[in-house]
Amino acid sequence: MTTGVVMVNYFIDKLIDGIEKKKSHICVGLDPHLDQLPPSMLKNALDNPESKRLALARVIRIFNQTIIDNIAEVAVAVKPQMAFYEVLGNFGISVLEETVKYAKNKGLIVILDGKRNDIGSTARAYAEAYLGDGKLETTGGEVKYAKEVIADAITINPYFGFDGIEPFISREERGAFPLVRTSNPGAGELQDLKLADGRKLYQEVGRLVEKWGKEVRGENNYSNLGAVVGATYPGELKQLRKLMPHTYFLIPGYGAQGGRTDDVLAGFNEDGLGALINSARGIIFAYSREPWSEEYEEDEYGQAARAAAIQMRDEINQALE
Amino acid sequence: MTTGVVMVNYFIDKLIDGIEKKKSHICVGLDPHLDQLPPSMLKNALDNPESKRLALARVIRIFNQTIIDNIAEVAVAVKPQMAFYEVLGNFGISVLEETVKYAKNKGLIVILDGKRNDIGSTARAYAEAYLGDGKLETTGGEVKYAKEVIADAITINPYFGFDGIEPFISREERGAFPLVRTSNPGAGELQDLKLADGRKLYQEVGRLVEKWGKEVRGENNYSNLGAVVGATYPGELKQLRKLMPHTYFLIPGYGAQGGRTDDVLAGFNEDGLGALINSARGIIFAYSREPWSEEYEEDEYGQAARAAAIQMRDEINQALE
Repeated sequence: MTTGVVMVNYFIDKLIDGIEKKKSHICVGLDPHLDQLPPSMLKNALDNPESKRLALARVIRIFNQTIIDNIAEVAVAVKPQMAFYEVLGNFGISVLEETVKYAKNKGLIVILDGKRNDIGSTARAYAEAYLGDGKLETTGGEVKYAKEVIADAITINPYFGFDGIEPFISREERGAFPLVRTSNPGAGELQDLKLADGRKLYQEVGRLVEKWGKEVRGENNYSNLGAVVGATYPGELKQLRKLMPHTYFLIPGYGAQGGRTDDVLAGFNEDGLGALINSARGIIFAYSREPWSEEYEEDEYGQAARAAAIQMRDEINQALE
Repeated sequence: MTTGVVMVNYFIDKLIDGIEKKKSHICVGLDPHLDQLPPSMLKNALDNPESKRLALARVIRIFNQTIIDNIAEVAVAVKPQMAFYEVLGNFGISVLEETVKYAKNKGLIVILDGKRNDIGSTARAYAEAYLGDGKLETTGGEVKYAKEVIADAITINPYFGFDGIEPFISREERGAFPLVRTSNPGAGELQDLKLADGRKLYQEVGRLVEKWGKEVRGENNYSNLGAVVGATYPGELKQLRKLMPHTYFLIPGYGAQGGRTDDVLAGFNEDGLGALINSARGIIFAYSREPWSEEYEEDEYGQAARAAAIQMRDEINQALE
C-alpha cells in the first residue's frame, strides 16, 4: 500500500470524496420506464420474434450504458430503480447486475433503489443480496459463492424498527437510506400522522434514523445511514435538516416530480454537504423533453442526458455558492 | 362455459374457495435459507465447479418442487420470501419464477412476500412485475411482452399512503397484503408510537387498510386488500380483528417465530374465516427439527414437511371447532 494515500473505508466518506472531486451533488436515477425509452429502440425490441422480455432487457442494457458513459463525469452516483428491472424478471435482474457493474467501473457510486426490508433473518438476506460479498455460513463452515455485483448502498423501509436497519449498516463500506419523507401526493396519509407530543410521524422517523446512524459515522461526521427525503415540501426539508445534522439526504423529485433548485437547497448543511439530489426522467429521458428535445434527436438521448445533467449540476452548484 | 359453475373472479374469493375445499387455513413459507437446506444438497452445489449461484439456484428449485409436491393438498397457499431468491441474483429470480409456476399448476395460491412499494409510477411497475399480465402501453399502442409468471398476491409496505396501494389492487383477480403489525423484537419502535388521540400507529394503519380495501370486497365480503399481522402479540391480533372485519389477515410467525395455535385463533372471525396462517421454517425444514428429525432422514425433507403441515393444519382446525 502506498503511503500518503488516504484509505476511504466508510461508504459515506467515499460518497463525499466523490462529491468533492467531481464538484457535483447529483445522482442520476436509472429508471428505464419501458414506455419512455426511445421509440425506435423499443420498436426493435418488440418486433423481435424471440423473448420480448429478453429483447427489452437488452435495450435497457444499451440504454443504461449509453447514459452512464455520458454522465459518469457529471454525476457522483446512479440510482437504479429496481422495479423497472424486476418487471422483466430474471432478464431484468441480469441487466441490473450488468448496469451496477458498468457504473462502478466508470467510477460511479451505485445506490439501489429497492425500498426493501423485512424482519431479522430476511433483512439479512436482502443485505446479503445487494450489499454482501457472497460469503455463506453453512454447517460445513464458511464458503464463498461468487457474487457478481455489490452495490454501495440501498434504499430501505423503516417500518420494522432498528432490527430491520442493522443488517444494512453492518459493513462499513456500505450504506442504506431509509424512507423518512416521500414526495407522492398521498405521502401525508401516514407520514403526517400527529403523535401524542404534537410532532408528526415522519419527524419521529427522522429522529430515529439520526439516532440509529450514530454508531456508523465516518471521518466527515456523516453517517452510513442516510435518509430518503422528498423535495416537494421545502419547509419540511429544512426542519429535517436541523433535526438530522449527521444524516445524508437522498433527495428524489428534482425535475420531473416538481422539485426545483430553491426547494432542495434546504437539504444542505452549512458545510455545503448533506444532500445528494436525484433526477431520473429529467435526465435520462431529456431527449424527449423541453428544451432538450429541440436540440437533440431521439438517437442522441445520451448527449441530451449529459447536457441535462450538466445543467442540473451547475444550477445546484451556483445556488450553493 | 358450463352452467352451474360459479366463476370466482376476486382473488380473495379464490383464496376462500381454496380454504373451504381443502379445509385448511395454512400457507407454507418457501423461504429457502441457504444455510438450512439439507446439508448433502448444499454440499453438492458448493462442490460444483461451475457457477455456485447457478448450482445453489438449482438446489432450491428441486427443494421447492419437492416441498410443493408434498404440501399441495394440505396447504391452500405458498408464500415465497423473495429475499432468499434475490440473494442468488438472476439465477434466483429464475427459480422464483419456476416455483411460482409450479405451485400454481399444483393448485396452490401464490402470495409473493416482497414487502415492495414506492411512489405512483414505480408502484405500478412493481404491480406489473408481479401481478401484471405483460401488457405494455407504448406510444405505438399496446403490446404484450409475454409474462412468464403471475402471482396471485404480494405483500407490500403501506408507508406511501393510498397511492402506493392502489396499483396493487386494481385487478380484481389479484390481491395485496400491506404490513400492519410485524412480529420482530423491534417492531414496536415505530408501530407502537402513540398518536395524538391515544391510539398506536399500527392501529391507525389497520384502520386505513380496512378503509382502503372497501372498494375491492368480493362475494364473501372480504377485501382483496388483506393485511400482514404478526402472531406474537395475541391481544393486538384480537383488537385488529375487531377493527378490520373485512380484511383477511396473513399471519406469519407460527412455529419458528414463537406463535402457537392459541395465539393465532384471535385472528379469525366468527365465520371461521379471516386468517391465513403461515409457517416457513417449521414446515420446510421440519426434517432437521424436533420431533420430525427423529422420524425422517435428511433426504426425506419432503415427507417431513408434509407431516408437519398436516399437524399444523389439524391443530388449527381442531382449535377452530
